Amino acid sequence: MSASIAQEQSDLHLEQIINDLDNNALYDARGHLNGLYPAEIALLLSSLPIDYRNKIWSIISPEMMGAVLVILQGEVRTGLIEQATATHLIDATNTLDINDLSVLVGDFPADVREKILEKKGDSRLEMSLSYDGRTAAGVMSLDVLTIQENLTVDQVLSYLREQVKIANNMDSLIVVDSSNQYRGMLAVATLLNHDTNQIVSTLMSSEKAIPLNMAVTDVALLFEQKEILSAAVVDEQSLVKGRVCIDDVLDIVKDEAEHVVLSSAGLDEEHDLFSPVLVSARKRAVWLAVNLFTAFLASWVIGLFEATIEQIVALAVLMPIVASMGGIAGSQTLTLVIRGLALHQISSSNSMKFLGKELVIGAVNGVVWSIVVATLAAVWFSNWGLGLMLGGAMIINLCCASLAGVLIPLFLQKKGIDPALAGGVLLTTVTDVIGFMSFLGLATIFLIN
Amino acid sequence: MSASIAQEQSDLHLEQIINDLDNNALYDARGHLNGLYPAEIALLLSSLPIDYRNKIWSIISPEMMGAVLVILQGEVRTGLIEQATATHLIDATNTLDINDLSVLVGDFPADVREKILEKKGDSRLEMSLSYDGRTAAGVMSLDVLTIQENLTVDQVLSYLREQVKIANNMDSLIVVDSSNQYRGMLAVATLLNHDTNQIVSTLMSSEKAIPLNMAVTDVALLFEQKEILSAAVVDEQSLVKGRVCIDDVLDIVKDEAEHVVLSSAGLDEEHDLFSPVLVSARKRAVWLAVNLFTAFLASWVIGLFEATIEQIVALAVLMPIVASMGGIAGSQTLTLVIRGLALHQISSSNSMKFLGKELVIGAVNGVVWSIVVATLAAVWFSNWGLGLMLGGAMIINLCCASLAGVLIPLFLQKKGIDPALAGGVLLTTVTDVIGFMSFLGLATIFLIN
Repeated sequence: MSASIAQEQSDLHLEQIINDLDNNALYDARGHLNGLYPAEIALLLSSLPIDYRNKIWSIISPEMMGAVLVILQGEVRTGLIEQATATHLIDATNTLDINDLSVLVGDFPADVREKILEKKGDSRLEMSLSYDGRTAAGVMSLDVLTIQENLTVDQVLSYLREQVKIANNMDSLIVVDSSNQYRGMLAVATLLNHDTNQIVSTLMSSEKAIPLNMAVTDVALLFEQKEILSAAVVDEQSLVKGRVCIDDVLDIVKDEAEHVVLSSAGLDEEHDLFSPVLVSARKRAVWLAVNLFTAFLASWVIGLFEATIEQIVALAVLMPIVASMGGIAGSQTLTLVIRGLALHQISSSNSMKFLGKELVIGAVNGVVWSIVVATLAAVWFSNWGLGLMLGGAMIINLCCASLAGVLIPLFLQKKGIDPALAGGVLLTTVTDVIGFMSFLGLATIFLIN
Repeated sequence: MSASIAQEQSDLHLEQIINDLDNNALYDARGHLNGLYPAEIALLLSSLPIDYRNKIWSIISPEMMGAVLVILQGEVRTGLIEQATATHLIDATNTLDINDLSVLVGDFPADVREKILEKKGDSRLEMSLSYDGRTAAGVMSLDVLTIQENLTVDQVLSYLREQVKIANNMDSLIVVDSSNQYRGMLAVATLLNHDTNQIVSTLMSSEKAIPLNMAVTDVALLFEQKEILSAAVVDEQSLVKGRVCIDDVLDIVKDEAEHVVLSSAGLDEEHDLFSPVLVSARKRAVWLAVNLFTAFLASWVIGLFEATIEQIVALAVLMPIVASMGGIAGSQTLTLVIRGLALHQISSSNSMKFLGKELVIGAVNGVVWSIVVATLAAVWFSNWGLGLMLGGAMIINLCCASLAGVLIPLFLQKKGIDPALAGGVLLTTVTDVIGFMSFLGLATIFLIN
């Protein structure tokens, strides 16, 4: 399966739209956009260069605009918000519910935000602006449906049928006591499975609620460990403030995964494939600068051995091998540790046991590959002494790589620095420096007279 | 927030258990395990070296064993299955439902599997063994509840109350016609919100069902685009075979994210932090071997310029800088493209527009950083010619890095090879070779007389 059906579909949409816009056939483009889900239009927009994107933006309806903005993220969203007039933005938010609004208004220009807040007059919306996006409060839904614990199933059913409509994605209701404090959760299925004269408090599950300031990664873990689909979010007085649902958790997990991949290349912030060249170049330059520093450090180490290299030029030819093999071995260990930390598999109580295992693996692979490399190099340059130095340096570097691969992320985590962001660059600094130093150092000691 | 509450919790469990086992206090260990969720015990097991793991395995109850095995994956699961006797495994599966069983039995020894299949006598279970785990069939739940489209809400409600219990996590029911063919989905909330004499077919949504062989990544995309919580899975005759729920999608997304991170370090298969040293070493050796080949290729390129390096040793000191900066810039582009491909943002119709943008970024950053690097090098070695060559080589290498960062993953994707697995190693091969070749080549042409 080289291309999935979904991919062929989205490729086709993209091709049609580019074609329409290239031919200035805006009417056809509008036709092609009709019938697409908001998420499909969001994907289209983020797959297009900015000038194409703005053209599409100008031909979609305000309702679709709102729905699409909610799905988009980062630069793509803020870019399109900038493109829209205040009137458009206000129209776009007309059909949005309070949750979708709370996602968007923070990105709106201050004057538009004020107007919307005033129009809606909902204190929850205003409150939501102060929530930290990395906590339960920042991801929860604001519209909650609570029921009193002393009702019967029958009373709840007629309440639902006659007074409030529950949303299609609501798997359970939040149960509160007479002072509106959180008591438990009642699965909607329970309402259907039990006698209509039973009391809610006897049927509800007494899952703990989530505090407003719980970290999103903890929220995700909780959902996974307890295998629940939704949970209530409460403040310090146990008053229900919102609800986290498993689709919010899905977003958390996806953001987290994206963060790990992007940050390992120093790309944490860049969400837009087609952001302006100078914006992209400037963002990436930071990472290049960090790397330049470490590259010069490695060069400085090599520079210490200029006299040695002058005598045996083959050292210059072979030295990248030691550094590169160390880098690969170290990054394997590093990747496992970063993943282990994220999954909470590694902590202070087992990290030394893991380090021990990794050191042995480093030594085993060091010995095996140093024999291969040493033989190849010795034959190439008809110099067994050279091969021996290369092999020795490789063993040293692979063991150091294991050590660094375990200790660097543990150290960073302890210091509150994201290991996924800084781990790779620190690791290759270590493996480059140790690789060059050990190989050139051994050669200076044993091969130079 | 340096450590989350959830993390402190799991760290504490781990510390207590290690302590108990080190003191051979199995009774205390059992006490500490009591009251933990299966997912917490699964996390504990995968965080422990194999000898500790087996000790814990011997003291937990068969019911817990079953629940824990369902959560564990890969090597950790198969290792523990090997440790358990046939009787234990059969006891462990007694309390499992058909879905959990279908996840496990494929990993059981053939004789145990046969016994369980015979005992359960459920053809769906046998069938599930033939499903491909990368398709909807491989992840769906097997126990489906269908209702006839011509029933009234009232009839459905009394059917649910009197005859079958719906699961707590069931947000909607699957609607079929009189020949049992799929017709649509009926949200449970709809049952509660509507008049009891309405007919199911007028209330159901006509979402398309998922075919058995749809790729899991397409399933995930579908859930995201349509914002649904569950969907029916059907065979070619439109007969309902199962149900995919959003928590299955969460697992798909997590597996996919893990695959991207691990495979970029050549670690696709290694799921167990504490697998035996020789097993780990052998698995990682493959990646080291691939890298060794590319490292020797780079060395061979350097070797072509031995005579040049002999005359100007500073070239050997500076050459890693060119290669390393190219590698970093290229991997930034590569990361964006791999992510863009996974999100279906990049296809043949926009890839050349993206390539154009990346080439300009490469050129801009190439010029900026080559000025910095050239100046530093020229000052260091008091040799402006050398600085000029270094700067020129950097511009060439950063442009080639952009080109390779875009074209390599597109090429791999076209050939059906996973870009996350092979992209990085191919990219650094290109940036190393071009980096060394351009720097040493320019120096040979312009600095050697």
